[in-house]
Amino acid sequence: MIGGGPGAFIGAVHRIAASMDGEIELVCGTFSSDPEKSKQAGEMLYLQSNRVYSSYKEMIKSEAELPAAERMDFVSIVTPNHLHFEPAKLALENGFHVVLDKPMTFDLSEALQLKEVVAKSGKIFCLTHTYTGYPMVKEARQQIASGKFGKIRKVYVEYPQGWLSTYLEGAEHKQASWRTDPSKSGIAGAMGDIGTHAFNLAEYVTGLKVVKICADINSIVEGRKLDDDGAVLLNFENGASGVLFATQVAAGEENNIKIRVYGEKGGIEWKQGDANSLLVKWLDKPAEVWRTGTGYVSSYASHNSRVPAGHPEGYLEAFANHYRNFALYTKARINGTESKQEWEDFPGIEEGVRGMLFIEKIIESGKSNIKWIEINQ
Amino acid sequence: MIGGGPGAFIGAVHRIAASMDGEIELVCGTFSSDPEKSKQAGEMLYLQSNRVYSSYKEMIKSEAELPAAERMDFVSIVTPNHLHFEPAKLALENGFHVVLDKPMTFDLSEALQLKEVVAKSGKIFCLTHTYTGYPMVKEARQQIASGKFGKIRKVYVEYPQGWLSTYLEGAEHKQASWRTDPSKSGIAGAMGDIGTHAFNLAEYVTGLKVVKICADINSIVEGRKLDDDGAVLLNFENGASGVLFATQVAAGEENNIKIRVYGEKGGIEWKQGDANSLLVKWLDKPAEVWRTGTGYVSSYASHNSRVPAGHPEGYLEAFANHYRNFALYTKARINGTESKQEWEDFPGIEEGVRGMLFIEKIIESGKSNIKWIEINQ
Amino acid sequence: MIGGGPGAFIGAVHRIAASMDGEIELVCGTFSSDPEKSKQAGEMLYLQSNRVYSSYKEMIKSEAELPAAERMDFVSIVTPNHLHFEPAKLALENGFHVVLDKPMTFDLSEALQLKEVVAKSGKIFCLTHTYTGYPMVKEARQQIASGKFGKIRKVYVEYPQGWLSTYLEGAEHKQASWRTDPSKSGIAGAMGDIGTHAFNLAEYVTGLKVVKICADINSIVEGRKLDDDGAVLLNFENGASGVLFATQVAAGEENNIKIRVYGEKGGIEWKQGDANSLLVKWLDKPAEVWRTGTGYVSSYASHNSRVPAGHPEGYLEAFANHYRNFALYTKARINGTESKQEWEDFPGIEEGVRGMLFIEKIIESGKSNIKWIEINQ
Amino acid sequence: MIGGGPGAFIGAVHRIAASMDGEIELVCGTFSSDPEKSKQAGEMLYLQSNRVYSSYKEMIKSEAELPAAERMDFVSIVTPNHLHFEPAKLALENGFHVVLDKPMTFDLSEALQLKEVVAKSGKIFCLTHTYTGYPMVKEARQQIASGKFGKIRKVYVEYPQGWLSTYLEGAEHKQASWRTDPSKSGIAGAMGDIGTHAFNLAEYVTGLKVVKICADINSIVEGRKLDDDGAVLLNFENGASGVLFATQVAAGEENNIKIRVYGEKGGIEWKQGDANSLLVKWLDKPAEVWRTGTGYVSSYASHNSRVPAGHPEGYLEAFANHYRNFALYTKARINGTESKQEWEDFPGIEEGVRGMLFIEKIIESGKSNIKWIEINQ
Repeated sequence: MIGGGPGAFIGAVHRIAASMDGEIELVCGTFSSDPEKSKQAGEMLYLQSNRVYSSYKEMIKSEAELPAAERMDFVSIVTPNHLHFEPAKLALENGFHVVLDKPMTFDLSEALQLKEVVAKSGKIFCLTHTYTGYPMVKEARQQIASGKFGKIRKVYVEYPQGWLSTYLEGAEHKQASWRTDPSKSGIAGAMGDIGTHAFNLAEYVTGLKVVKICADINSIVEGRKLDDDGAVLLNFENGASGVLFATQVAAGEENNIKIRVYGEKGGIEWKQGDANSLLVKWLDKPAEVWRTGTGYVSSYASHNSRVPAGHPEGYLEAFANHYRNFALYTKARINGTESKQEWEDFPGIEEGVRGMLFIEKIIESGKSNIKWIEINQ
Repeated sequence: MIGGGPGAFIGAVHRIAASMDGEIELVCGTFSSDPEKSKQAGEMLYLQSNRVYSSYKEMIKSEAELPAAERMDFVSIVTPNHLHFEPAKLALENGFHVVLDKPMTFDLSEALQLKEVVAKSGKIFCLTHTYTGYPMVKEARQQIASGKFGKIRKVYVEYPQGWLSTYLEGAEHKQASWRTDPSKSGIAGAMGDIGTHAFNLAEYVTGLKVVKICADINSIVEGRKLDDDGAVLLNFENGASGVLFATQVAAGEENNIKIRVYGEKGGIEWKQGDANSLLVKWLDKPAEVWRTGTGYVSSYASHNSRVPAGHPEGYLEAFANHYRNFALYTKARINGTESKQEWEDFPGIEEGVRGMLFIEKIIESGKSNIKWIEINQ
Repeated sequence: MIGGGPGAFIGAVHRIAASMDGEIELVCGTFSSDPEKSKQAGEMLYLQSNRVYSSYKEMIKSEAELPAAERMDFVSIVTPNHLHFEPAKLALENGFHVVLDKPMTFDLSEALQLKEVVAKSGKIFCLTHTYTGYPMVKEARQQIASGKFGKIRKVYVEYPQGWLSTYLEGAEHKQASWRTDPSKSGIAGAMGDIGTHAFNLAEYVTGLKVVKICADINSIVEGRKLDDDGAVLLNFENGASGVLFATQVAAGEENNIKIRVYGEKGGIEWKQGDANSLLVKWLDKPAEVWRTGTGYVSSYASHNSRVPAGHPEGYLEAFANHYRNFALYTKARINGTESKQEWEDFPGIEEGVRGMLFIEKIIESGKSNIKWIEINQ
Repeated sequence: MIGGGPGAFIGAVHRIAASMDGEIELVCGTFSSDPEKSKQAGEMLYLQSNRVYSSYKEMIKSEAELPAAERMDFVSIVTPNHLHFEPAKLALENGFHVVLDKPMTFDLSEALQLKEVVAKSGKIFCLTHTYTGYPMVKEARQQIASGKFGKIRKVYVEYPQGWLSTYLEGAEHKQASWRTDPSKSGIAGAMGDIGTHAFNLAEYVTGLKVVKICADINSIVEGRKLDDDGAVLLNFENGASGVLFATQVAAGEENNIKIRVYGEKGGIEWKQGDANSLLVKWLDKPAEVWRTGTGYVSSYASHNSRVPAGHPEGYLEAFANHYRNFALYTKARINGTESKQEWEDFPGIEEGVRGMLFIEKIIESGKSNIKWIEINQ
């Protein structure tokens, strides 16, 4: 693991998620740019001291020199955005598979470079867009792909948060500080942090690409350097239209990301606040409540669930699903055994490039007085 | 009553709403452009046959000639949009107060004319924007006006329906036919029918005017002559921003109009699907569920509720609240007795003009490639 | 109308419910045991002064002497329990149909007498058990009767209120006072007031009779003379078992009466808090949300609904359904025209006798140390 | 680990829960009574082959002989009920702390013996009653203990399942088979499996002991040897009363265990179906929605949560909380460092004895025609 030392939120999430299913063991890491802090973190995680490194460069180099049976199989990178590209590139070039936190890179240019690096390396790359790891999100995608709702017409996706309603970065708040700092986050704040999740969710669930956007991007809290709010009109490749909004100043909101999709005959609704249910709606018959862990869901939903229906699974399990699928797929590749399509269903380099394109275009649109901006790549 | 004969939906709603609280009695009407149908409708409503008229002109003329104690006190107009202006004008000019269904007129020009007619007549005018009749919508407005949430920053309002997902106007469907016919509805379909409700709700609850819009307007079902879908980015006079969407092709949706408003410290959420609850959210303490009929709600919410907490009141009661308030206010005016501010809280000519302005501008914006269109009047 | 003067809650509800659908007009009444108060109430209701009476005896006598075309068609009795039997008996014996508030009488003995009076009179009798007037409750009954869930096994019904959590009857609280006074309510408090509603709902929805009960009856608030709380184990005639609880000391609860019924293959759930939905559950497929006002519900649900799906109908509409059905059925009888089975579906004398039996037996069981008490009649 | 081999449900849950927080590592096990199956399970779990044992006796003996730094610190026992007592006793007597699945033993007699063994051993004992591991259940307990609701009056607790609606044990269904087999489960089926959870939840949340019960116990599915359904009237030591029901034949229900508690001024509601919310109700002000991961919850709720508000935590995290607290407390004891009260808040031997007493008494009550049975110990 690279990053995820004291005070980090997402590093601990990655560790829990990775270890949950007994397929992955943390063997080494560099947890902080401060070697002393990195060492302490390694101790707290019960790592062998000789495998706690003072820099990612040292780690990749040293691990690459270990015998194949001992060295790490892949690396998880959980640093702020500006520290994604270089370690990912180095790891891939040294023969390691990579799991990377989102948004993928600091800017679109890095994303396109990384795509080439991945292709050249032949290594497996996973981008942790958490929400597509939920079993009922996968169920939604499968049902829409089946055509049962007819042509998709409308997509509404939203991600309201409230935690940045005040000028938290003025206080000593580690999470708020880097996320609102252009030198660490890139050109976007909320749009990069949570807008990309909403965008990814919409494209994943519908199986459709957004081709045009029209955005209203705001920096609402006084003194804030990046956007903390945005709303976007969407056009999809098949002619469907939609709305995406993401905000970090909806005081009182937590993390209730939600998507609704409508086709000619019906549609779906899913939200993290009731993550184990998928509401399926019909034009002319009762809505249905599809549930995680039941006998009637698709193989994709079943595979990504651990406990019987009614025992809720949550955010960490969704996150763990990406790790588990990445691990199963990677092991099959390493061992030359057969993989399953359910295992290959985790976000990768394409989703990362789309996300960075979204960030670039949405900020451009926010500043433009032209209504529609194309977002083809 | 003018309109509301066989096959009409909203006429029956007006009659139930008007009679609910025992303040208003139906005494005369012209229910159809076909005198025979009008007569039959009058019989079914137990009206005296000599007060069932064959045209609104005849009705207004005849009623005006009756002694004051006998003649109708006001007229309710529940015809399609293109038949709003003329009868309303005639009634006002003949000394009758008017209750009119929304949207107010066929176009903005008529709306502005009607505003002058109302002013000149000195009569009382009520526009039945149903949703602002709900007690918890009134509670939301009062709480926001109190300043407890600080400055308002974000407004999300939505009205998803699904009933026009197919080409219903191709079948013999009276409701669908006139609503999708430009000669009866005016330039807008869904935006006039339900978009105006969402717009009115947003301005009422926040007490703020929208000043700029950017709209994506669609006619999705093949063959349809008017819009059946739209999404709009909103800017408010105080700098707040928001999103409004209204659609009639969200297959499986019914009439779950919903609004969320966020200020610096918290906000509110209300939806017709849980109409007797108002969710009040806070940045740093538990959300609260305010309920109709309790002892702790504002005088506005209390006044507009009839039964103890937990016994749900619905759409007809919300509608009836407008009628009841209109009646109480009108009686006070007629009798020269004191009115209460709670009675005067019903939508009137200003809301009607704003609605027609919204329709004109949103259709203009939908066709424009300029991003922001002003909506000041 | 008999009763329902100043300070009464249920009288106003009856008047709104009766007038809602334009089938019933209030023509006369005696609203209070105090003739002056009765007169004032009559004026406020715009009645002719000569048809506001100072006693129910006078009213029934005088109305009976009016020409058939003028006199009232039926009488609504909305007094406290101890004043139900005598006026109902007198009205029936003088040829008037009767609508009576629940519980039907002061005790079981009166109930059995009234049953005979009804039979002998040949008049129509309606008991206003509100909750079976809801369209989705009727839908539940129809679906269970269809056999689609197999044999019914379990029934859970509950009615939690909190309003009597303090010694309200010690203050001047009219509603609390008579409901906790054995000389007005009879032997039961909460069990008579709301327990009977829960019991009636269970028997109506399942179509099954309770045959044995085991009750825990409590008077929790200090100084209270009657029960304010109870829980009951139930056995039904087909072998199904269940639980009923009703309480008035669940502080914070309003009126969320709820029922769940399970058969071999699935079941239903309905609650007043979401009155327009019926949750239908299945052993091996997704739960379904059936909704009022849709095209797919039974004729019983359709008939008892007024507005399109998504526009909520509530308590007053449910109440009005009983009045409307009673009126339609009574008119058909008077006019000798055909009635429909949907019209005849309102609670009557049988339900009233069952309710009084329930009260007698539940109080007996509460005091007994024998576990099971039979409740056959 | 003892038990939890192929086909077991709860063994995998224990492993995920134990490993989630990086405090516990699986080092040895005996996973099946069949040594070959045990060996295979050990391999799949990446254990060293010499620490996969063919019997629990061998394991405890061998591990006890290992150097302190190498041997297991504690043992998790996840076998069916009839195989709880012997291994737990042996482990405790050999100096190992124990985590045991519920219900604690085969019968009350074993439970009382185990209590003595634990006392004598001085070892730490944890019983995995999952639901008290939820942060919002802990929050509920803290709020009630604070006295803010006044004296507790009513407790409603329920655990409806539907999975045993058919004669599953007739098919080859491992879970159904042992749970309905008296030789493995003991005298109770549903009451032992899920009734004990409901009972434990009620006593934990209220901090009150049940002193009298009156039960209706049923075996509904034909051919079933043990109860699959029950409902119980409850009396608590402080005079409060309540209802508990648990069933496995509520077709369509999953695992939505739920509790409501009411005091003089308000109360709480929690259910697994919305596990991250605690509804707090008040007699005279709006209900509040308390949420996991927020800044305002108690130290108990905070300590038992891993991610920010709005990212749902579920069943596995609740389970993991018991393991984590057990581990933290055990480590503090081993290391002689200070423990925190939040760490000591996991179910232990007392809860186990109460559970077995509940089972014995509820079955006795079910068969008795005396109404109330005492349940003091």
